[in-house]
Amino acid sequence: MGKSTPLKVALLGCGVVGSQVARLLIEQADDLRARVGRPLELVGIAVRRPDVERPGIDPALLTTDADALVARGDIDLVIELVGGIEPARSLILAAIRHGASVVTANKALLAEDGPTIYSAAEEAGVDVYYEAAVAGAIPIVRPLRESLVGDEVTAVMGIVNGTTNYILDKMHTEGADFAEALGDAQRLGYAEADPTADIEGYDAAAKAALLASLAFHSRVQLSDVVREGITSVSKADITAAEEMGCVVKLLARCTLGEDGSIAVGVHPTMVPLSHPLAAIPGAYNAIFIESRNAGRLMFMGPGAGGAPTASAVLGDLVTAARNRVRNGRGPGESSYSGRAMTDPGDVVSRYYAAMTVHDEPGVLAAVAEAFSRHGVSLQAVRQESEGEQARLGVMTHAARHSQVLTAIDELDRMPEVHPGIALMHVEGA
Amino acid sequence: MGKSTPLKVALLGCGVVGSQVARLLIEQADDLRARVGRPLELVGIAVRRPDVERPGIDPALLTTDADALVARGDIDLVIELVGGIEPARSLILAAIRHGASVVTANKALLAEDGPTIYSAAEEAGVDVYYEAAVAGAIPIVRPLRESLVGDEVTAVMGIVNGTTNYILDKMHTEGADFAEALGDAQRLGYAEADPTADIEGYDAAAKAALLASLAFHSRVQLSDVVREGITSVSKADITAAEEMGCVVKLLARCTLGEDGSIAVGVHPTMVPLSHPLAAIPGAYNAIFIESRNAGRLMFMGPGAGGAPTASAVLGDLVTAARNRVRNGRGPGESSYSGRAMTDPGDVVSRYYAAMTVHDEPGVLAAVAEAFSRHGVSLQAVRQESEGEQARLGVMTHAARHSQVLTAIDELDRMPEVHPGIALMHVEGA
Repeated sequence: MGKSTPLKVALLGCGVVGSQVARLLIEQADDLRARVGRPLELVGIAVRRPDVERPGIDPALLTTDADALVARGDIDLVIELVGGIEPARSLILAAIRHGASVVTANKALLAEDGPTIYSAAEEAGVDVYYEAAVAGAIPIVRPLRESLVGDEVTAVMGIVNGTTNYILDKMHTEGADFAEALGDAQRLGYAEADPTADIEGYDAAAKAALLASLAFHSRVQLSDVVREGITSVSKADITAAEEMGCVVKLLARCTLGEDGSIAVGVHPTMVPLSHPLAAIPGAYNAIFIESRNAGRLMFMGPGAGGAPTASAVLGDLVTAARNRVRNGRGPGESSYSGRAMTDPGDVVSRYYAAMTVHDEPGVLAAVAEAFSRHGVSLQAVRQESEGEQARLGVMTHAARHSQVLTAIDELDRMPEVHPGIALMHVEGA
Repeated sequence: MGKSTPLKVALLGCGVVGSQVARLLIEQADDLRARVGRPLELVGIAVRRPDVERPGIDPALLTTDADALVARGDIDLVIELVGGIEPARSLILAAIRHGASVVTANKALLAEDGPTIYSAAEEAGVDVYYEAAVAGAIPIVRPLRESLVGDEVTAVMGIVNGTTNYILDKMHTEGADFAEALGDAQRLGYAEADPTADIEGYDAAAKAALLASLAFHSRVQLSDVVREGITSVSKADITAAEEMGCVVKLLARCTLGEDGSIAVGVHPTMVPLSHPLAAIPGAYNAIFIESRNAGRLMFMGPGAGGAPTASAVLGDLVTAARNRVRNGRGPGESSYSGRAMTDPGDVVSRYYAAMTVHDEPGVLAAVAEAFSRHGVSLQAVRQESEGEQARLGVMTHAARHSQVLTAIDELDRMPEVHPGIALMHVEGA
């Protein structure tokens, strides 16, 4: 086909991100044409509510029949911004069947059922790109899939959810408790009316599954991720973190064990102030990578928002379009290593345990003894008297999760220790 | 060809980086094969001194005849780590003519004569990748060329030379003067015996040319870069920066002007502590990007060293090899925008000027008046008496370089101002 024959683009979903993508396709048409080698023509936009006012968008492009749009048969590139599992999955699979390459920001779908989509794409010889699904505008999928493909990644850690990072930041800087900080985030539009996906860690867990799959060339699904949200993070936890020279972040943590297995978890985590991830503010995202040869790398940027996410979508769109123009394809899914998941009890981390004890001689020794009995050595202890009781904070050296849990269980049954021991992950060696 | 037929790899140069590349090609052969889809076979290594001991490398692979190696005709991928202009350029062009794709870390050559190489590759239908040429292991070429290709990048700023970053860090943290810090860096192997390329900013300028070319889809060469090294940075400059809440960094700065022209400069620059680049320590590199839609992104990591640079080389090698296996090609050079360079006098920046003046009434007013007369407004002034003299430090608001120079020129001729006014760029709005 000639250089002036447009590549036809269909857009599914026209919300916060979709409307920005449509705008940029029009505004930057000349640049995009020069970068692709052929024009990109937006030929249809599938929406649920065609009557909503959409400034700058030709109403003739709108349709409520997404199925018919992807089945036209002449579409080169489909951008899926519907979100969720269905009908997004069926639409993507139909688009692939009809020979289109797909760009999607759908982390939930890829974390739940990515392999179905990747193998359909492989069979049809088309591309599936999803840079926008993880950490918004931060280029992280392509660096993992291509730049670091000659290296062995041993850990990927990230702040991948801006809402929870904003809330925890607020708790640190303003002494707010969780409910207040959440309320603020909702008023300012950083958190949704139903904040479950963010604050319970589901969103971060889906991204963690994608990051781990890419980093370790293996299939990791949402159900493989050990997940813990931030709803139980208390003011006391925040204060304890500060006393230990740390801040609390919701960290997605993907690590390659010495036995070759993969551990993927999302946990509120104490991060030492000396760690580059500690300084990531407010609604920003950041990904920290450790690899055998490249060493330690960090990427930061806006993790959400219409324009940043649209930038990531368009970067993928140009890449997929270039591949079409050159009759080529990008690298597909790489899951050759087929690694096992680490047993959650075998995950090694440092921990911080906070408890209230009777303030009497011998209690500290008894607590230390309980940890020691289960092979957990202590790195730091803080004790503060409060009348007849004392608050006791204990930071462990790296230990297996099961060992720490057994020690905590034993402490919980000691008469000198009050019920309700708070336990938190601590990052760093 | 079958899946077991190897792709043949030739390595030119086997120094610090090359020996790591050779090691990894052997150690990670199974992973590389799985990621490429076919084995990679190292068939020859061109070296100058074949007698040097090279543990782990089969001496039968060594040759001193690099020309004959690239002219074998059966080589799929050539890795050029010779450095410098010649014979590197001739070897790369010969490799391309013989149908090989090329991976190189040669910033000097690409900044001087990249277009010759890119067009030869375009004509021959092969790839040229050069992630390792800028900021070592930090993935930055691919993010600019692919991830941000749907966006408009407006600025790229970076700490791209670890040697100068180490020296300036040392001057800040230990109060060392330039000569002492350079001596330390040489003793520790962070600076070479002839440190000219680093401390005079040539290395950073070559990287800046490559970054600007990628970011703005235009051809920027080494000769387009306004370059200033760190040899004249004094203890007094460091102290002045600290007093203004800044640190001094050697910054490569590539900006897109409102008139569509490009300014590229390498200068010692005061960076406010609130800027993410201020915190980049020691021998690390970092790149900061501003773009219309993605917003502000930062990438950091080790900027040099054998293993990190080898990681970047191998990432490119796997990508180029995958393209071969799929009969595809990566995106080539993109210089469609053909932008003009901004006249150096028109570059807009904040500046800091330090001078010694007679400590008498009216001098400060006269200095302020001189700036004002040339349209430069002042943001902050610090004056400190030293007997009959005073040290005067002046931070301007953003102004055109020519305006600031004219004001400085006028000050230099005032009897109340001692000769020798120090001028430094200041980052931030």
